[in-house]
Amino acid sequence: MSAAAVARRRRSADELEIVAFERGDHTSYAACGLPYYVADLVGAAERLVARSPDQHRAHGIDVRTRHEVVGIDLDQRCVTVRDLDADADHAEPFDHLLVATGATPVRPALPGVDADGVHGIQSLADGMSLRADLDDHPHERAVVVGGGYIGLEMAEAMKLRGLDVALVEMAEQPMATLDPDMGALVADALRATGVDLHLGETVEGFEVEGGRVRAVATSAGELAADLVVLGLGVRPRSGLAAEAGIVVGPSGGIATDRQMATSEAGVWAAGDCVETYHRVSRRPVAIALGTHANKQGRVVGLNVTGGYATFPGVIGTAITKVCEFEIARTGLGEGEARRAGFEPVVARIEASTRAHYYPGANPITVKVVAERGTGRLLGGQIIGREGAAKRVDVLAAAIWNEMPAEEFSQLDLGYAPPFSPVLDPVLIAARKVADSV
Amino acid sequence: MSAAAVARRRRSADELEIVAFERGDHTSYAACGLPYYVADLVGAAERLVARSPDQHRAHGIDVRTRHEVVGIDLDQRCVTVRDLDADADHAEPFDHLLVATGATPVRPALPGVDADGVHGIQSLADGMSLRADLDDHPHERAVVVGGGYIGLEMAEAMKLRGLDVALVEMAEQPMATLDPDMGALVADALRATGVDLHLGETVEGFEVEGGRVRAVATSAGELAADLVVLGLGVRPRSGLAAEAGIVVGPSGGIATDRQMATSEAGVWAAGDCVETYHRVSRRPVAIALGTHANKQGRVVGLNVTGGYATFPGVIGTAITKVCEFEIARTGLGEGEARRAGFEPVVARIEASTRAHYYPGANPITVKVVAERGTGRLLGGQIIGREGAAKRVDVLAAAIWNEMPAEEFSQLDLGYAPPFSPVLDPVLIAARKVADSV
Repeated sequence: MSAAAVARRRRSADELEIVAFERGDHTSYAACGLPYYVADLVGAAERLVARSPDQHRAHGIDVRTRHEVVGIDLDQRCVTVRDLDADADHAEPFDHLLVATGATPVRPALPGVDADGVHGIQSLADGMSLRADLDDHPHERAVVVGGGYIGLEMAEAMKLRGLDVALVEMAEQPMATLDPDMGALVADALRATGVDLHLGETVEGFEVEGGRVRAVATSAGELAADLVVLGLGVRPRSGLAAEAGIVVGPSGGIATDRQMATSEAGVWAAGDCVETYHRVSRRPVAIALGTHANKQGRVVGLNVTGGYATFPGVIGTAITKVCEFEIARTGLGEGEARRAGFEPVVARIEASTRAHYYPGANPITVKVVAERGTGRLLGGQIIGREGAAKRVDVLAAAIWNEMPAEEFSQLDLGYAPPFSPVLDPVLIAARKVADSV
Repeated sequence: MSAAAVARRRRSADELEIVAFERGDHTSYAACGLPYYVADLVGAAERLVARSPDQHRAHGIDVRTRHEVVGIDLDQRCVTVRDLDADADHAEPFDHLLVATGATPVRPALPGVDADGVHGIQSLADGMSLRADLDDHPHERAVVVGGGYIGLEMAEAMKLRGLDVALVEMAEQPMATLDPDMGALVADALRATGVDLHLGETVEGFEVEGGRVRAVATSAGELAADLVVLGLGVRPRSGLAAEAGIVVGPSGGIATDRQMATSEAGVWAAGDCVETYHRVSRRPVAIALGTHANKQGRVVGLNVTGGYATFPGVIGTAITKVCEFEIARTGLGEGEARRAGFEPVVARIEASTRAHYYPGANPITVKVVAERGTGRLLGGQIIGREGAAKRVDVLAAAIWNEMPAEEFSQLDLGYAPPFSPVLDPVLIAARKVADSV
């Protein structure tokens, strides 16, 4: 819908007809906000909707909800659209096609996975269903499956709803995208918030009673559960494109050039269904994140209307919060750097978010990864409390610009006691790594 | 003392004797923390002291407090030191000399300026004296003279101590280093916190009764005052160096090369007494800030012990907080950019510190300045509430790296609803300016 909105601003309805097919009921909603809606930090689901179908229509975009595109015919330049209510198909021609099919949540085919009380959390409908379950029934204990971003955010949401929370993660650490030493700190943080953490355990199925889940069976035993949230992440939903012969890349996402054009002329792709270029590893990656989707959509909206815009790729920045803890990463971790062919040098420091004497100064741990020899910054990871995680942005800017740690350590960052120690924690970390490259 | 500590870590007492002369009683204290000590956010003055004279001595640094250096003899390679208690001078020889004489607070020679109740706020002794005045006497109304960083911080401190606060500023806006449109927002913020703001008024003297101040006379009338705080900023204390023939630059600070060497062999300078290179305007500037002093001290400590280190200059980043408002700037403002020979293009946006639906989302205003044609980012200014100002750091990193606004607007910054809207406010501002360069 970002692409549609940008294109509409640049071309009137006389010049360009814009039709959007959506198989669900909603458009332009903040999927990233679902955990906070479930937690009741956001009161009404409508608050997550940036623009409803009717609002888009008022802007001259012909949104057709409950219409699913089930086929793309590149020779005939048309898509096959199924009206889900009428259960009827029709062909819709196009000059330009944007594939923005998003992502599919990982949902293991385990016994009991379809029982009442087992919730995915990808669509607004998922969120509404989970929240209704919480609102309508008294629950005591939730099991969250998956220790990535969405798993952690849902663990927080269940805590905020007053439930006891267990979290099961197959790996030996939560947040597999962090280095193990930083992952261990996340595990400590989760335990400190009262989450019953089960690392290195595989979910084998769900015990069901009267149609409703009552426990999660793992490789280590059984966890009682009134409610289960599957937070196992997502994969690019690229099947429709692949069936039409549009090239899908090694990450599983639709391959595009930097203008977001696919392998087929006049066919564009954007959002969670594509793969993008990782500027540090130089490898294609599929990262489902609203901020990338939004930027990519704008690029398509400009390019289909005769403009020129490119999406420059990503560096893997991510940030999350679980209760009072904040976690962030950017660039490559130590292991990722090695796998990308770098020889990494690392430093990890503990500092304070504010001047040590200023009220509310919180401990913060910063790890940075640099390239041996050049000292080029390759990655950064942060864990701490209020005021910690958004410091990842300045590391992201440095990594984007391929700054050496030595130069970065001298950067002129904002200093005043309510905001930072004399040397910001990110500068202290960069100084330490610069001294050992 | 940063220089001394770094040098001591690199050279044993057998190899290098280190003597530090300090005319006051304290070493290594956080002058930036004085407003928070006065406000009683910091309980004891000792909390501001990073390392006492005795602690330095324990690390092999011969600190001599209440000893003032009153002359530098470059031919004889010695300094004249006055023992303030004994009132006796002696000559102390040196191989290397570091001039770290700091800054002098601006103190206008106005009638009544020396009355009881008129306080400067530069040294720890100043802070202790002001706090004692507040602790020991009931006061109702404070007048703060000066609307820069220290003036605003002291206005907050006086509010926190429960006083009515008036602030007098000669310019038509507070925070003269901000563009007028952003300065007007700061004025609104100050008024919103209940500060009685007097812009465009000059202080002409102080009314004194029984030896104690009772009012401030300005060009527009009289302001009752139980207490006056002079927050007029500081100038480099470069007189001692100048008298010895060491070159002082156009900004009034001691001129150094990038290794912090002065015009005289074996004589170094660092901290508030020096001028430094502004990387965007390419002009020498004197900016008194602990974070620069600390970095410069380290550079000297390395260079005097046979290492090699440089201080790369500054870009004018500054940040402050007054009650619930946060204010920050980096690079050049619109007028500063024009005066430096750039043709500036500007954009100002209002956005939100978090996803609009997330609790605690605060309004934030971001202004960016870019160069016409190239789109190179030249400056950024921010005002908002909690979570606003530290965003200046990512702008600082971008300006340092001479990023074009277009590229910056696509940067991969941390996005999650508790931390940012889908596009961070700084990205929205960069996008807007990129569209008009």
